[in-house]
Amino acid sequence: MTVAKKWCLTEAQRRDAADPIAFARARFSLPKDRIYFDGNSLGPLSHAVRQRIAEVTAQQWGEDLITSWNAHQWIDLPKRVGNRIGRLIGASPGQVLCCDSISINLFKLLAGALPMVRGKRQVLSTQDNFPTDLYMVQGLSHLIGQHACRLDLVEESALLEEINDDTGIVLVTEVNFRTGRRISIPELVAKAHAHGALVIVDLAHSAGAVPVHLEAWAVDFAVGCTYKYLNGGPGAPAFVYVAKRHQQQFQQPLFGWLGHAQPFDFSPHYEGAEGISQLLTGTPPIISLAAVDAALDAFQDVDIRVLREKSLGLSEYFLLGLGLLELEEQLRLISPRAAEHRGSQLSFAHDDAYGICQALIERGIIADFRAPNVLRIGFAPLYNTYEEVWQTVETIGEVLAAKEHQDPRWQTRNAVT
Amino acid sequence: MTVAKKWCLTEAQRRDAADPIAFARARFSLPKDRIYFDGNSLGPLSHAVRQRIAEVTAQQWGEDLITSWNAHQWIDLPKRVGNRIGRLIGASPGQVLCCDSISINLFKLLAGALPMVRGKRQVLSTQDNFPTDLYMVQGLSHLIGQHACRLDLVEESALLEEINDDTGIVLVTEVNFRTGRRISIPELVAKAHAHGALVIVDLAHSAGAVPVHLEAWAVDFAVGCTYKYLNGGPGAPAFVYVAKRHQQQFQQPLFGWLGHAQPFDFSPHYEGAEGISQLLTGTPPIISLAAVDAALDAFQDVDIRVLREKSLGLSEYFLLGLGLLELEEQLRLISPRAAEHRGSQLSFAHDDAYGICQALIERGIIADFRAPNVLRIGFAPLYNTYEEVWQTVETIGEVLAAKEHQDPRWQTRNAVT
Repeated sequence: MTVAKKWCLTEAQRRDAADPIAFARARFSLPKDRIYFDGNSLGPLSHAVRQRIAEVTAQQWGEDLITSWNAHQWIDLPKRVGNRIGRLIGASPGQVLCCDSISINLFKLLAGALPMVRGKRQVLSTQDNFPTDLYMVQGLSHLIGQHACRLDLVEESALLEEINDDTGIVLVTEVNFRTGRRISIPELVAKAHAHGALVIVDLAHSAGAVPVHLEAWAVDFAVGCTYKYLNGGPGAPAFVYVAKRHQQQFQQPLFGWLGHAQPFDFSPHYEGAEGISQLLTGTPPIISLAAVDAALDAFQDVDIRVLREKSLGLSEYFLLGLGLLELEEQLRLISPRAAEHRGSQLSFAHDDAYGICQALIERGIIADFRAPNVLRIGFAPLYNTYEEVWQTVETIGEVLAAKEHQDPRWQTRNAVT
Repeated sequence: MTVAKKWCLTEAQRRDAADPIAFARARFSLPKDRIYFDGNSLGPLSHAVRQRIAEVTAQQWGEDLITSWNAHQWIDLPKRVGNRIGRLIGASPGQVLCCDSISINLFKLLAGALPMVRGKRQVLSTQDNFPTDLYMVQGLSHLIGQHACRLDLVEESALLEEINDDTGIVLVTEVNFRTGRRISIPELVAKAHAHGALVIVDLAHSAGAVPVHLEAWAVDFAVGCTYKYLNGGPGAPAFVYVAKRHQQQFQQPLFGWLGHAQPFDFSPHYEGAEGISQLLTGTPPIISLAAVDAALDAFQDVDIRVLREKSLGLSEYFLLGLGLLELEEQLRLISPRAAEHRGSQLSFAHDDAYGICQALIERGIIADFRAPNVLRIGFAPLYNTYEEVWQTVETIGEVLAAKEHQDPRWQTRNAVT
């Protein structure tokens, strides 16, 4: 065993030395003596972000005050940042905005897309989709009635076959937040379109970690998160995508003043702006948007395919280590075994998943827990290393052996996505 | 004239020396050699805010990462900051949240309030209300139909008499963004309630500058802005108020996961939280919320009545100076002459209002312009001084005398609220 362990460490170090994007780790301000495998929940601070926040706060806001809206082009930030996110998800300019939250953006998309499917009222989604996605459909139903919008939930595995001519909208998250399972979007879109349905994809656990090709996949609408793999900061604004071909017909109902064709005319009558700008609502949160903008710098010279390769490399190495330490039975993998069907995380079921997570935190390793019994390990290829992977596997072995996860302190639970 | 001018300056300095809240100015990081009368559009940076942003960014996010949701109680920020805002607008705890934008919060209130007026569909507002307020009603009408929600616009002066038994909701901004005119909310609420209507008040130009007593005035719902007189930063999250007596019955339709009774159960079925928390939607923007929290420190030891007194003192001094320099005919006051009917701004109509505004900026004085012909001077009693008021009046006189406002450069226009 000692030989095997030694090999694992050496091999991890060898892989880190050969990592073509190892340089990116230095861009982040990672806490000392800690290992962070929770970038799928909250990405870390980068030096560029810290500098930009300080600059926007002290110079732009502090010194130039209101004139910054023009002088520093604050007014264009949602579009400019949106276009930069677009490059990571296969969307050419003019189709992505950075604004509001996923919840709010989903409401815009759902309410705007339903009238486009000629009276069909079914929104089809998966039982295990991230709750806010389902709740927004339920909220819209509550508002406009079940006759106009009805949420039908099916098992993820049955989703494709459940799409039929009654389906109006298919709402999915590409990578399942609990299991890390990745849905094949091109296949889904083909089936949906064949039945006259539109597709809304939530990229919360995809953007910045998984190659996404919204245009090539013919996706109709999408939303996503900037505070996970994109490292934009806690609660940073989300993004929203509307395919160019739909922008003429699409009309979202949250008529905010910045989505007006001529916001500075201050007309009492709403007239939606051309293109993606129509999805703007209120005054954009400048400091947060600037933070997202700076966070995207870390991706500028990194090929998303290389990121993906490393992401899968890290997760496969995790599984290799787990096998070597014979922990596979204790920690039951609930993510797909085939790498191509996963996002950038591994999830394990264990009755004491919460305890394992807490015991790991005490040892300086941060992963996360999802009710009722899931331990999630999120791999962020921009900064995680193979050595960290091995250290984590080894520590999990020690925690389990010493039964640290059964400590009575871990009887109450709390967590944040 | 020279004697009069000299008196004005001396008197201004005398008043500043006697100002009971003069100490508060030192809390702000105001740009050197500039005078800022645009705090009604974007409040300035305070030292407390700059420090807090740096701390939340580098320590909480940077070092403690995901654990900050519990360790630094990020999760409670919308409520905690909401309660602090409540103290400035006459709302006891549990009725105010800091979240989303005014636009989004208005949508929640409109959609949630309409079912409470037993089938009445009229939303009554004023022609000159801030556009986003009107647009959100139009958006809701677009979504649920004119039979369920219809916006009727009247002149501000006719608002009271237009309220009748058909009125479902009265939607007003207490202080008009263009003219600074202040509506009497208690009178409005009494009339509305007598006709079975509910009242939504937008406090964008009130909070932090005008004494507001939501509970005493029996206001049903309110929204407001934190980046104007509250100095929370560009595009900082807004606030929303739901009177406790309505919280049981009220149900807003933007069912976000953080508004769920048990968000961390990740149930696929929405069940709204008790009380004001039901108005939460997506993950809150932590850095921005922390900035608002710190910005409120500047109000902690300042009586809002003293603020109001100084606000009116500053604006009356402005008018006094204008009269003394005989500029009253050139710069036509469109705010009410009676101080009690104004918020904390003075607005003047002038064909070259944009040019005057630009010429003032060149001379280091920042006020703002609103289409088509309005010059707005916003008085922020926490940091503006009587001497600044006098210097501004004097400079306007010089600009007009030298015809700087007619410079051909000022032929195109742009501005931000």
